[in-house]
Amino acid sequence: MLRLDKEDLSVYLAVMRFVVWFLSLLTVFCPAECGNVLVWYTEGSHWINLKIVLETLIDRGHNVTVLVPDAALFMKAKESDRFSFQHFSVSTSAQDMQDFLDELLNFSVYEMDQLNLLQIQMKFYNLASKHQDMSISYCDGILKSPELMDKLRNGKFDVVLSDPIYPCSDIVAVELNVPLVFTFRFSIAHAVERMCGQIPAPPSFVPGSMSKLTDKMSFTERIINMLFYLSQDAFCIIAWKKFDNYYTEYFGRPTSYCEMMGKADFWLIRNYWDFEFPRPFLPNFKYVGGLHCTPAKPLPKDMEEFVQSSGDDGIVVFSLGSMIDKMPKETSNMIASGLAQIPQKVLWRYGGEKPDTLGANTRIYKWIPQNDLLGHPKTRAFITHGGTNGIYEAIYHGVPMVGIPLFGDQADNLVHMKAKGAAVVMDNIKTTQPQDLVDGLNAMINDPSYKENAMRLSRIHHDRPVKPLDESVFWIEFVMRNKGAKHLRVEAHNLTWYQYHCLDVFAFLITVLTLVLYVVFKMCKFFIMRCCFSSKRKSKKE
Amino acid sequence: MLRLDKEDLSVYLAVMRFVVWFLSLLTVFCPAECGNVLVWYTEGSHWINLKIVLETLIDRGHNVTVLVPDAALFMKAKESDRFSFQHFSVSTSAQDMQDFLDELLNFSVYEMDQLNLLQIQMKFYNLASKHQDMSISYCDGILKSPELMDKLRNGKFDVVLSDPIYPCSDIVAVELNVPLVFTFRFSIAHAVERMCGQIPAPPSFVPGSMSKLTDKMSFTERIINMLFYLSQDAFCIIAWKKFDNYYTEYFGRPTSYCEMMGKADFWLIRNYWDFEFPRPFLPNFKYVGGLHCTPAKPLPKDMEEFVQSSGDDGIVVFSLGSMIDKMPKETSNMIASGLAQIPQKVLWRYGGEKPDTLGANTRIYKWIPQNDLLGHPKTRAFITHGGTNGIYEAIYHGVPMVGIPLFGDQADNLVHMKAKGAAVVMDNIKTTQPQDLVDGLNAMINDPSYKENAMRLSRIHHDRPVKPLDESVFWIEFVMRNKGAKHLRVEAHNLTWYQYHCLDVFAFLITVLTLVLYVVFKMCKFFIMRCCFSSKRKSKKE
Repeated sequence: MLRLDKEDLSVYLAVMRFVVWFLSLLTVFCPAECGNVLVWYTEGSHWINLKIVLETLIDRGHNVTVLVPDAALFMKAKESDRFSFQHFSVSTSAQDMQDFLDELLNFSVYEMDQLNLLQIQMKFYNLASKHQDMSISYCDGILKSPELMDKLRNGKFDVVLSDPIYPCSDIVAVELNVPLVFTFRFSIAHAVERMCGQIPAPPSFVPGSMSKLTDKMSFTERIINMLFYLSQDAFCIIAWKKFDNYYTEYFGRPTSYCEMMGKADFWLIRNYWDFEFPRPFLPNFKYVGGLHCTPAKPLPKDMEEFVQSSGDDGIVVFSLGSMIDKMPKETSNMIASGLAQIPQKVLWRYGGEKPDTLGANTRIYKWIPQNDLLGHPKTRAFITHGGTNGIYEAIYHGVPMVGIPLFGDQADNLVHMKAKGAAVVMDNIKTTQPQDLVDGLNAMINDPSYKENAMRLSRIHHDRPVKPLDESVFWIEFVMRNKGAKHLRVEAHNLTWYQYHCLDVFAFLITVLTLVLYVVFKMCKFFIMRCCFSSKRKSKKE
Repeated sequence: MLRLDKEDLSVYLAVMRFVVWFLSLLTVFCPAECGNVLVWYTEGSHWINLKIVLETLIDRGHNVTVLVPDAALFMKAKESDRFSFQHFSVSTSAQDMQDFLDELLNFSVYEMDQLNLLQIQMKFYNLASKHQDMSISYCDGILKSPELMDKLRNGKFDVVLSDPIYPCSDIVAVELNVPLVFTFRFSIAHAVERMCGQIPAPPSFVPGSMSKLTDKMSFTERIINMLFYLSQDAFCIIAWKKFDNYYTEYFGRPTSYCEMMGKADFWLIRNYWDFEFPRPFLPNFKYVGGLHCTPAKPLPKDMEEFVQSSGDDGIVVFSLGSMIDKMPKETSNMIASGLAQIPQKVLWRYGGEKPDTLGANTRIYKWIPQNDLLGHPKTRAFITHGGTNGIYEAIYHGVPMVGIPLFGDQADNLVHMKAKGAAVVMDNIKTTQPQDLVDGLNAMINDPSYKENAMRLSRIHHDRPVKPLDESVFWIEFVMRNKGAKHLRVEAHNLTWYQYHCLDVFAFLITVLTLVLYVVFKMCKFFIMRCCFSSKRKSKKE
């Protein structure tokens, strides 16, 4: 047996220190020369996901510079931030942005179902137009500031990393002559991915994002999906005209927003097959959904005590996301009275007035450690508005969901979870009755199939060769060290739409076929006529 | 400073042994319960690739059973093999298989260019028909042997792994009720991947395999590619009829070869974007080309001495693959006289008679350690027939190529390398003149772009988050531990061709549009007529 005295131990410790040091070297090992990353500004929950990638890039030794407009709402610099912020001025104010978001939220949650389809489209176009004007003011803030552009040019950046909810990152990448990596969840009906990224999306089994359809569509649903694609494409073509003109004017040659977006080297899509329906994609598209998820950390002491007091019944976690923490009194009372009827303890993130009907089993918190609660062994269900980040945390920890969609992509996200058997979904917050909520929660907790399906999604999420965050960082670094990823970019980018669909080839082949058939027909006719004529003449002679 | 005496050293070594043991544990760590893998029989170079995957599965603790017919030519059991062979009897003999291969080789290398297109198609159909008859005799050998099928059913297999050059692995997977993983390079014009695997392949930028086209096609080439697809699809539909009937008869219900292949859970394609042109694919397709490549090992002593004697000029490695090691005297003389004119030393794998024109710089070997030679720092170029394995070894080590295609996919493979700027390609072995070979080799050695491009492909090959062999093994194990990968299988498998292309939706929409337009037209006509008529009548009255 190995005998370890004090001296041996010191050597052992020295060796172990070396091993740990060596392993830590491996962890922060930066395979290329560590480089400079320029990050495009973004907002809201998009920033949460992006920030995690940036933190990892910094851990691996890269320098990260984030472009932030003065009017930023969510991208506030903190002392703890390790990346540098490059501020720029815009003609839009933070208040304009807040007003726009309030208007969007109000329209989506409360106004939409009182309007007809035409009114909705008009309002939506109106909002899109406002957003575009703000976006262009941001573009101007960077592109029309010679000092800033000079500073960026001298920054020796190796890549531009952009969540393209705002345009012009592609222009800056061209100006700096560096590759461009997009990282986002989806565009309207996948229009950007389809029309600019050239990802194939057959409408027969790829439902448009936000269409609330699944990949299993009836004939009627396929018609709806086709009309959804066509209308969204038309909407985008019209809505992007403003950007097209801006891009054309900037470069002084005819170009378009879509053409420039198509030049991106890599597309990191924050989705995966635990959430998305399987669909075709391209070599420069990687699906890295759930990169923000982490194992649960211990809860604060009083919260843990409350959770433990639930006994075998367990707890229900309830949050409607970071943007909605208040609701009308009537709605909150309705929800609270529903929650009061279940045997589970409920932890509800809510910033509004305490509802009158609040049960003894429900506690309200201004903020909850959502990921840690979802990862707690006592958690039985998650009541969610259906935001991607929350759904991904539930998938990560294998928690079934009761969905109350509010606006944007939330209803569509919840359709995905429902189709995969891991969620019950309410129509919307205004029409949900206490009993609906109780029924939904009871189904969730008493029918084991929901938990089984949530656990299956969780297994799919975890069981991949590379973790999503590591995969994102790998491909960003790949693009940096190889100065792009042109070998992954399909030739479809260089074809017109009719060439892509071989319409010119079909036209040619049909023309040739018609001509051949015509000539054959004419020849046959000629020979038959001649044959008949000569036999007729013969018989006449006879 | 750390002082290490003898005793310290023993502790240090013990710790290091522990670290190595721990790391080796990590290497052979089998994340699921180790399982049982049933491997479908295959032949030739397909077996080389498959064997490496099987070795790794065994290293990770799985039990591997390989089905081998009595008539096997290449799948000979060796004492060193760690997997068990399950033999089965077939009505075809090894001689039949050898005769078939000889006929195929003779047709492809020597006869083909003396025949017209119709004769080629007829001969090819004839050969395919022979191959099918042999394949069906293999199916019979397994499916119609109740003892063997019982043995397989009792084998508690977790997956069937199949390189589907021979059919019926899908039937056995269904019979054993286990998932199925395919591993192969490509089918004719990607027909199996497209028609059975539902991978999208727009003919406008995805050249049919063996079409000798690239992804950058002119209008004429796109027409050729479309005709190539159409003819190959028609060929497959006709040729697969025999299998369709066999499958239908076996199951006693209408089914097809393609439908059953489409049930595979996972498709491991032995290709990657260092070789293949970028194209759309699906979540259950992974590209794992080059999984057999390894770093170079030291050469045998006399070979190393010969290589070193080349000085700064370096060496050229020459092999026409494992199936062709002899050629007509005239051809070998032509090649040898070309090789004699270059300053490099040449190592030529050749089993035929020594050519009269052999130069002092050229040595003939019955066998060469090809991978080790390609990885040698003195290697300047590789003369190859264009087999996938050889090309992948050249890519792995970054060696530019001179291609002399012989048959099968080789000319097409070399087109890929030429398009990527890493190869010069001769027309064929019979028409190649000594000067062509000298010019090709000189270009390869004196024009740095070839070496640069070969090195670029090598970087692409190595620079991926998971090595191809590890990725293959990961997904095989994934399918084993999750009992399939249905969440990665697109819904396209459940659509008819007209549903997939939305032709029914278009027909409906066009009908509705026509009806609406017709009604509007009729209404307009009615109102105009009424208007005109009433005004006419009015004027008449007046």
